[in-house]
Formats: sequence, C-alpha cells, structure tokens
Amino acid sequence: MPEAFEQDYPLQQLKQVTKSLNSGQFVQVRRMLAKTAPCDTALLLESSPHKIRRLLWQLVDPDVQGDVLEELSEDVRLGIIAQMEPEHIAAATEDMGHDDLGEVLRSLPDTVYKDVVSAMDIQDRERATQALSYQERSAGALMNTDTVTIRPDVTLDVVLRYIRLRGELPEGTDDLYVVDKHNCFLGALSLSTLLTNPPEKIVLDLMDEDCESIPISMDESEVAQLFERHNWISAPVVDDNAHLLGRVTIDDIVDVIREDAEHSLLSLAGLDDEEDTFAPVLKSSKKRSVWLGVNLLTALAAAFVASFFEGTLDVLPILAVLNGIVPSMGGVAGSQSLTLVIRGIAVGHINQTNQRFLMMKELAIGALNGILWSLLIAGVIALWQWDFMLGGVLAFAMFMNLVVAGVAGASIPIILKKMNIDPALAGSVVLTTVTDIVGIFAFLGTATWLLV
Amino acid sequence: MPEAFEQDYPLQQLKQVTKSLNSGQFVQVRRMLAKTAPCDTALLLESSPHKIRRLLWQLVDPDVQGDVLEELSEDVRLGIIAQMEPEHIAAATEDMGHDDLGEVLRSLPDTVYKDVVSAMDIQDRERATQALSYQERSAGALMNTDTVTIRPDVTLDVVLRYIRLRGELPEGTDDLYVVDKHNCFLGALSLSTLLTNPPEKIVLDLMDEDCESIPISMDESEVAQLFERHNWISAPVVDDNAHLLGRVTIDDIVDVIREDAEHSLLSLAGLDDEEDTFAPVLKSSKKRSVWLGVNLLTALAAAFVASFFEGTLDVLPILAVLNGIVPSMGGVAGSQSLTLVIRGIAVGHINQTNQRFLMMKELAIGALNGILWSLLIAGVIALWQWDFMLGGVLAFAMFMNLVVAGVAGASIPIILKKMNIDPALAGSVVLTTVTDIVGIFAFLGTATWLLV
Repeated sequence: MPEAFEQDYPLQQLKQVTKSLNSGQFVQVRRMLAKTAPCDTALLLESSPHKIRRLLWQLVDPDVQGDVLEELSEDVRLGIIAQMEPEHIAAATEDMGHDDLGEVLRSLPDTVYKDVVSAMDIQDRERATQALSYQERSAGALMNTDTVTIRPDVTLDVVLRYIRLRGELPEGTDDLYVVDKHNCFLGALSLSTLLTNPPEKIVLDLMDEDCESIPISMDESEVAQLFERHNWISAPVVDDNAHLLGRVTIDDIVDVIREDAEHSLLSLAGLDDEEDTFAPVLKSSKKRSVWLGVNLLTALAAAFVASFFEGTLDVLPILAVLNGIVPSMGGVAGSQSLTLVIRGIAVGHINQTNQRFLMMKELAIGALNGILWSLLIAGVIALWQWDFMLGGVLAFAMFMNLVVAGVAGASIPIILKKMNIDPALAGSVVLTTVTDIVGIFAFLGTATWLLV
Repeated sequence: MPEAFEQDYPLQQLKQVTKSLNSGQFVQVRRMLAKTAPCDTALLLESSPHKIRRLLWQLVDPDVQGDVLEELSEDVRLGIIAQMEPEHIAAATEDMGHDDLGEVLRSLPDTVYKDVVSAMDIQDRERATQALSYQERSAGALMNTDTVTIRPDVTLDVVLRYIRLRGELPEGTDDLYVVDKHNCFLGALSLSTLLTNPPEKIVLDLMDEDCESIPISMDESEVAQLFERHNWISAPVVDDNAHLLGRVTIDDIVDVIREDAEHSLLSLAGLDDEEDTFAPVLKSSKKRSVWLGVNLLTALAAAFVASFFEGTLDVLPILAVLNGIVPSMGGVAGSQSLTLVIRGIAVGHINQTNQRFLMMKELAIGALNGILWSLLIAGVIALWQWDFMLGGVLAFAMFMNLVVAGVAGASIPIILKKMNIDPALAGSVVLTTVTDIVGIFAFLGTATWLLV
C-alpha cells in the first residue's frame, strides 16, 4: 500500500547530503541521488549554497541531468549550465521539451551556443532552430509540440484503436485535437467524451467546436490568465491561419503564474531576476548594488532639498528631529497604493475604464488616513514639545504628503506602464522620490513660513 | 472554425457595461451577461468599482450566480455575499464544489450562517457540515469529493464499460483511483494507461502503486509545492487510515499558488487580505490605517532617538540635512534581504541546514555594498561640503547600517517564522525600526563624538 506523503522529504535529505559532501563521501551521495526523483533533486540543488550545489551537480547521473535541468528554476539552471561543457549541455537537452530547450539555448552566450549546437545531431539541431524561432515569453516559446491529433470524420472506435496503437499519451493530455487535412485546428475531443460515448459515434458530432485556441504570439502572462480563468489543463496553439502548432500545458502555466507573481514581489525590492536565494555573494552583490545606487541618488536629492532649509534647521533643531516622520508616512501610504495597482495590472483588472475611479479612490483613502494621522500626530507633538503651532505644521505636511502619496502610488504604475517601463521595477524609486521631496518641502517649507 | 482567442475580451466589455449601467439600460446588460461565461462575468465584477459591481451582480442570472461566485477571488466574493439574502446564498451554493462551499460558509457571520443553513434541504445541509469539518487551509478544505473509483481485480474492459455507463467524468480527471472494498486507496490508473493497454489486462497489473496520496491535514501551501514539483493534475486525499476521501485538482492549486505569492507581495506593503482593488474607500482605509499607525510609531521612535542629538543638530545643521541618507540606504538593503528570505521560506528553500550560510551571505553582501557606497558617499560629501571628516562619518555610518541591514533582513523573517508570526506581515516594520534606529545612532552618534 502506498504511504501518505512524507512532509518536507527532500529538505530532510539536505542535512545528510551536506554532511556527506563535507566529509568527502561522494559515492554515498551519488547512490542517494540515483534514488531521488528529478524534481526532488532539483529542490535539493535550489536549497543548497552554491558551492555544495556545484559538487552535488557533478554527482547527478548524466542520464537524468536533462530531467533535473527541466525542473530547476531559471536562475539556478543558468548558473549550472554556465559550468557545463558544451557536449554535456547538448546531451542534457536531447530529451527536453520544446519550451525548456528554447529557454536553455536562449540563455547561452553566443560562443557556447555555437559549440552546443555543433555537438548536436541533425535532428536535434532542427529542433533547436525551431525552438528558437518563437519570441521569448510568447505562447510559441511556452508550447510543446507533442499533440495527439485526429480527423473529424472517423468514429470513436477508430480513435480508440489509433490511441492503443500509438501507445502512452503525452503528459497532461486531456484533449485530443481535431484537425483537417491541412492541419487546421477544428476543435477538441476530450478524453472524457471519448470514454463516455458510444464507439460508433463520429468525432465531428462530439467534438467541442468552441474550444478556444491560443495565437502563437500571445504573451505568456495573458495565456496564464486565460488558463486561470477557464481552469484549463491544456490548450491548443495555432498560427495566424489556424494551423495547429502545439499545445500549452498547465504545468508550464503554473511556472508562469509563480514567476509573474514573484516578479512584482522581487522587483519592488529591486531584486529583479534574483530568484536564486543561494547565489554566490559577488553575483548577488552586483545585482543589488544597482538598486542601492539609484536609492542613493534619491536620498541625495532629498538631502539637497533639505539643504535649502539649512537656515531654518539652524534656528529650530527640533525640525531636524521630526523631519523623518512625514516622508516615512508618505512612503508607506504610497507603497500601499503602488503595490495594489501593480498587482491589479498584473492580474488584468485595471484598464482605461476603471483607472479614473481608482485614482479617486486612492485620493480619498489618502485624505481619510491623512486626517486621522494628522490629528493624532498634532496631538502627540503638541504634548511632547508643548508646541501647538509645531504640531499643526507637522499635521498639515503629513496630510498633504498622504494625499500626494495616494495619487502618486496609483498613477505612477499606470503612467510607467503606458511608457512601456516595468512598473514593478521602476515604480518604487519614482514614488519614494516624490514622497520624500514633497514630504520635506511640505514640512520644512511650511515651518520656514510659519515658525521662523 | 473556432476563432483564435480575442485578447482582453472581457475588459473591452467593461466600458460598454459601465456606460449602459450609467444610462440605466439594465435589460441590455442583463442580456449581455446571459451570453457571458461565468469566468468572464467574474473578471468583469472584479474589475468594476464596487457600486457598479453591486448593480452588475443584481443583473446576473440567479441560476449561474453559484458558478460566478466560484470563480471570484475571495475578497470580492465575500463582499458580494455580504449583500445577498440567506435564501439566495443557499441556492447559489447548491451546485458548488465541496471546497468553495466550505470557503463561502466559513466567511459568513454566525447569524447569517444559521439562516443560510436553514434555507438548505437536508442533503445540502449534510454537505455543508462535511465541508466545514476540515481545517481551513488544509488539504481537506481544498479537496473535492468527486473521485471516480475502481476495484483492482477487474479488467480494463470492465472499467471502460463502467465509465461509459457512469457518463461524463468530473473536470480535471486524469487518474481513476483504485480502492479495496474498505475504500482504502491502493493506487491510480491513469486515463492514458486505460486507453493505451489491451482491454483484457487487469487493473492491478497496470495501476501506479507508487502514486503518492495527500494526508487530509496537510497544509495547502505544502500541497501546492508538491503539485508544482511533480507536475500533478490531480492527487488523491486520504485519512490517517489510508481511506480515500477525495481529490485535489490543479485549478484549486493554481489559486493557492497565486494567493501565496501575492500574500508576500501584499503583506510586505501592509495590505494583508486586501486583494480587492476596487473595494469601497472606507473598507480600504480601515485596512490600511493599521499599517500606517504602526509605521507612525516606528517613525516617532526614530524621531525620539534623533532627539537625543538635538544639541549636536543645533551646532551642525548640515547633519540634519544628511540625516535621512543612512536610514534610507539601510532600509533598501534590508528590504532586499528580507524579501529574498521571505520568498525562500514561501517556496520551501530555507531550512536549518542552510540558514547559517544565508546569514553569512547576506552579511557579506552588506559589507561589500557597504564598502562601495560608503566610499562613494564620502567622496560626494567631501566635494559638496568640502568636509572630509563629515564624509568619513557618513561613510562609516552607512557601512555599519548596510551590514546590520543585511543580517537583520535575513534573520528577522527566520526568527518571526520560529515565533509563528507571519514574516511577510511583520517583517518590514521590525526591519525598518532596526535600520532607522541603527542608522540614526550610527550617524548622529559618530558625528557627536568626532565632529562636535
């Protein structure tokens, strides 16, 4: 009887593996890896510090290296491929699906790519050319070509016999695709329909003619939204003339969904493309330093604005003590709007019709929260410093900044999107610059005007 | 011939619908909705401002309201249910899957729940009790009970005839489950195996005995990780005695994966549970104000720390101008580590074996980036203010804060996780407090010591 699944199984191995590797017991690890499923080996690699990862990879049986590569996340996979010999890469890609093959080949530097391709046989070389012919992040790059096609004018009995002759169906097959003699897509016959109807019936009468097909150039995120909305398991991909080219399956869509959702998360922190938690220090430092540099410019700009008010700060040093509060609150309120709108764009909820409403809504939220926290901060400062005027100035600046933050947080991603700039990546810098500068101007400017 | 899918189709409708509703053409909208698939109606509702949403919902045919509710995201669904009469809720849940039924019922206030249940017939009431009997966010709450089971000792021919008699298979069926007479799970027979093998073969000889089953109490995120790793389409759910209880299908898993990934994104911005972009202003304001309040405390704490140095600021107002730079850089660097670790925890890559490595790695990145940006800022300040000592003090403070930020960003989520506090929700407040206070102390403290 099969056992219920052991929780966290591959990660429990990690401790053991790390210990064995550190004490040089390579044979033992190799034996253990031979018994591990490719998907679990992939998790093990992803969870290992990069040095251990390199050792581990050398102990993976070359025959399954291709399967393991298919299961790895992109960032980790590229790191491993960068250390492989061209012949080994060629060998590992032999049994890869069309989609993974394209992704791996695209990631190779030009010189390595040439070596890899020349190490392939003619058939694989053709597959490689085909895999690379579709645009990155399109349905074409996502699809596989392992469709099972049938003709509309045969009986189910003929289909059943054909399948039995053909043998094992490709993974994730829930529909057979009905095509005419020019390979034009006509509709889908689900396995369920095939199994539950009398064998003498004709395919044409039972097939789903309304089955939607995906244009080869559709963006992968849009494809994912369709899958999610329609609960598809697979969907046919066609060219402009409705010729069937392949199919997209849900396992690849799951990767797209996770990558899209993580893209917003990681990009907002300036971690674009850094999905490998255990990458080498230098690689990670380099990726992150760009963002820190951009932020330093923002911070210097804010300092520059503050320097206009050096005279005021000289007279009233308490302003320096309180100067961080308004920009901080604006930053948080703005991030809230920004994140919500970026997510709304990513899941396809925001368009021209509702963005005006959205802007008004975020403005109203900013105003409401502005009133609430302005009154509170005015009270706190009035009591702490026993200075009602100062409390009032801080309250006014906070209200202004929260309103601006709400509107900026909602509009910046929409504007960036229109300019074809990734809102998740650029949004938070632009926003912080706005909320910092408006916050400092509002607080120190009003203070200079009223208090000095 | 079916058309290739029209891109953005439901959102193009939104403009039309909004216009029609505003001009009171309800009949027209009702007619259009009747022709729209439930999943597209759901998208339309999710993309509508809440007032339009309410109007739209009243125009949805009561017969398909249940189907539409199943497709809606949780937050939007709850908003709609809150406005429905108990009888209508009872009617809408009639054809709902076990999992959605549980989710809807759990969301109801006690009094409404009683009214809804008393509006149900006996059979539905039993289903309701059963759906509520499993723990929220467990495999039990995620599963459906529509499994197709067969016995091990029959031939494929018997199975084929049984299925034909039974009619239409449940959506997402890729495996038939083999059980003994006590309903104990023995293994799975894939439709592919059923279709490609000779009809006289016995199920026992062909079934996959290694098919993993999911324990009823497993957390839904863990279930999702298993699905993702193994590329499953469905998986059987069993109780502690291996009795088959139901199955989890990939369409529900896709929702879990999206929700989990979005949870980190939204929580880090203090938007926990706010997945409805178009919720009413008051509802959103309330949800967000908590976070702003917490941040105000943090900002006040930082101001309080700065107030220790009021004397220093009085003597050297330039310090006030520059005081924002160090906390800002620490905040960004810390967020990078924090986000990466929170994501690592969410996808199951981080455990006791590798967390020490992770800490050392983030410390090293902090130090490297600290050296880089300290040198740069020292140069900028030395040139701007023609004060090498001031540049040195700022550089030292920045270096310190970036190192602390790296370590804090990596360790805070791990510590919070151990304390059973959601790292995505609490992590960034704790981190900001640390980087703000350390940043101010390091800069103003060192300045007081060396410059005054």
